[in-house]
Amino acid sequence: MSHAIRNSLLVLIGVLALLGGLTNPLAKAGNPLSAEESDPNRLGWMLGFPPPSEKLIMQPESDYFSFPKLRWTVCHIRELMPTTQVSRGIGDPIPLQYAIDKNIDGVSFTPLGGGKPMTWEISLSVNYTDGILIIHEDRIVYERYFGCLKETGKHVAMSMTKSMTGLLAEILVSEGQLDASARVASIVPELKNSAFGSATVRQVMDMTTALDYSEDYADPEADIWTYSAAASPLPKPEGYEGPNGYFEYLQTVKQDGVHGEAFGYRTINTDALGWIISRVTGKNIAYLLSERIWSDMGAEQDGYMTVDSKGTPFAGGGLSAGLRDLGRIGLLMLNGGEINGQRLFPEAVVENIRAGGKKSAFAKAGYKSLEGGSYRSMWWVFHNRHGGFAARGVHGQTIYVDPTAKMVVVRFASFPTAKNAKIDPTSLPAYQAVAEYLMRQ
Amino acid sequence: MSHAIRNSLLVLIGVLALLGGLTNPLAKAGNPLSAEESDPNRLGWMLGFPPPSEKLIMQPESDYFSFPKLRWTVCHIRELMPTTQVSRGIGDPIPLQYAIDKNIDGVSFTPLGGGKPMTWEISLSVNYTDGILIIHEDRIVYERYFGCLKETGKHVAMSMTKSMTGLLAEILVSEGQLDASARVASIVPELKNSAFGSATVRQVMDMTTALDYSEDYADPEADIWTYSAAASPLPKPEGYEGPNGYFEYLQTVKQDGVHGEAFGYRTINTDALGWIISRVTGKNIAYLLSERIWSDMGAEQDGYMTVDSKGTPFAGGGLSAGLRDLGRIGLLMLNGGEINGQRLFPEAVVENIRAGGKKSAFAKAGYKSLEGGSYRSMWWVFHNRHGGFAARGVHGQTIYVDPTAKMVVVRFASFPTAKNAKIDPTSLPAYQAVAEYLMRQ
Repeated sequence: MSHAIRNSLLVLIGVLALLGGLTNPLAKAGNPLSAEESDPNRLGWMLGFPPPSEKLIMQPESDYFSFPKLRWTVCHIRELMPTTQVSRGIGDPIPLQYAIDKNIDGVSFTPLGGGKPMTWEISLSVNYTDGILIIHEDRIVYERYFGCLKETGKHVAMSMTKSMTGLLAEILVSEGQLDASARVASIVPELKNSAFGSATVRQVMDMTTALDYSEDYADPEADIWTYSAAASPLPKPEGYEGPNGYFEYLQTVKQDGVHGEAFGYRTINTDALGWIISRVTGKNIAYLLSERIWSDMGAEQDGYMTVDSKGTPFAGGGLSAGLRDLGRIGLLMLNGGEINGQRLFPEAVVENIRAGGKKSAFAKAGYKSLEGGSYRSMWWVFHNRHGGFAARGVHGQTIYVDPTAKMVVVRFASFPTAKNAKIDPTSLPAYQAVAEYLMRQ
Repeated sequence: MSHAIRNSLLVLIGVLALLGGLTNPLAKAGNPLSAEESDPNRLGWMLGFPPPSEKLIMQPESDYFSFPKLRWTVCHIRELMPTTQVSRGIGDPIPLQYAIDKNIDGVSFTPLGGGKPMTWEISLSVNYTDGILIIHEDRIVYERYFGCLKETGKHVAMSMTKSMTGLLAEILVSEGQLDASARVASIVPELKNSAFGSATVRQVMDMTTALDYSEDYADPEADIWTYSAAASPLPKPEGYEGPNGYFEYLQTVKQDGVHGEAFGYRTINTDALGWIISRVTGKNIAYLLSERIWSDMGAEQDGYMTVDSKGTPFAGGGLSAGLRDLGRIGLLMLNGGEINGQRLFPEAVVENIRAGGKKSAFAKAGYKSLEGGSYRSMWWVFHNRHGGFAARGVHGQTIYVDPTAKMVVVRFASFPTAKNAKIDPTSLPAYQAVAEYLMRQ
């Protein structure tokens, strides 16, 4: 592989690190810097006019999505690649209400797998938190910003983007615009000869498609490299003859096994779902997300999505957004489609998601920190005693909804390793402990 | 020049077409399509999932800033390259007031250089208008959108960006933060050995620097090619050894002649001014524009700016913004720094700009449609009987301020040729006629 092509492929590793279970191959070996040590302002990334060469984070030479550069990049994706707007419209934002509770900092929990009890406040640093919001009974009870993030800033949502795409799909299903039982090929004929063609829309939404797709980064022939090259918004290297863009790539994916039997976390399902949605509605995902959600929920900031070289928004992981705006998404999910006294979509949409997917199919994927859970319409359902469900993205991104405690937690983070299995032990029990604390108030 | 390098250089021609007097070399020969015939929706650019290959506008193969593709691109720059936000903040927008006057459509004028009288309404199509706003006595009296633009959309400002940079510089001068009489080298030592080093800040602001800089597109050795390659936010082609980014390029510019004697419209002056401003304030131009103007003027949309590969905003031409937000800029200039009853900067800032630059220096540049005018702090001053002055960008962009008529006209356009000399004859007398009409009301 030529240097130029290799560089081009490396470009998207970061964004594609949202693919399940991946430990970022570019991260430093050994113990990483702490959250305080790796604070992007302290490290001086991109500061100065111009920044010193050793402080530059740029395309394509720099491994911009590796730790600790990652801690700057999560707030600055649009400065590195083309993007499209998720418009909030031009009306007045509708502010969220506050009832700050400073005692939350002292709430204690025991990390998964044992270990010493830890306070909520300590967990923020342990988890390399960039922004955290807790909403209880529709009011913000806790809100903090760290690292690169400010309240007027935006942060990568990573695979939480999938949950937005899944939500849009569920809305279309509830309206009868999209038939979840239809074969994908009947909606997107171009996918007929791919693995997706014979799958149902529901199987794509729940990621139970059987795909011949490898994400083994150590293997230079792995599919992830072809996908990365196709998805890159940068001009293709000279001599490149592979697929260009998400839609072309998806047509090349072959089937391996029987659809519907096992959950397999593959971002390309969401890209396929994005295509299905766009074909059905005549609108791209960024536009539809604005039209159906962002412009109606009282959002205070536009969001944005990365695009491929043909302008297709990255339905599987391209969203960046403000912390409180994802809080509004959490409120919509908590309150069955309502926010600010207005209904944005039917309650059945959230009921379908909360009910979860096939647990038996999910169990086959072997997620240790999510045992007993399932995946439905691109949302993770914990089936825990509070009925929690979540949008999740690598490096610690989450919108965690606890219907029993009437609580939403939104967290942006830049945890050194991509894998959420590494951050769940100091996160999931913390959410549970705060939920129980709030229920006692 | 290799194909790859050539492609890479071509990439930025469009954005750099803001350089004075340039006729877009990529535009089709012969009579172009009319405004109606070239409407981007009618031509179907980028429509469909995916768009048909002949309807794609993408990097780098496609000459995306040539007519008629230009008519789509002017609203979609961020989908083609990295950008940074010009934040409006998260407060409520402050709506502009309306007093629509439908009779404006019938206002008639005689184009410069003679010809038949033309109505205002007809001129909109003749000028390939994408958006037009007329404000009179602080109220919107006329507002129309065409082509790719909607009221919630953004459009390239092209060289009107320069006027924002110049305005920021004037504000800093008025506050004593920036000494207009200082030599550039005393502020940015890196420019000591370049042409800029011995120039004063004022000479840079008024573009009376004497630069050895050629924009002859027919000459493969012209400086514009080196500048384009340096400025491109896309990864540099393999083997590229030239300057990378605006700041590196500026250091290579040599002097030719005596500073202060002649006006020479060179975008690199504005990039140098951007560097000066950033060095003085510790903030990049996009951030400062947000902090000083955008977040305080009741803006309804964020703006954004293109960046080079090191994240430097393109101070000379990178802004995209909403039509009414540029109307707010016009109001600030009309009302001496006040908007919504709030003062954003001292009245002296506007007084300095309105007074104009050296007419004798300006005359040497030979602008036929701007005879008797001058250039001050990156604003064009007409010295006409109404005291008009303007921000201007190629392909028809303008914020035209008429202090006598208390009128602001903002126009976004995608006129087939870059040169404003081609669109001025059906624009400047139209503004004057509408001003006179409004003064009679």
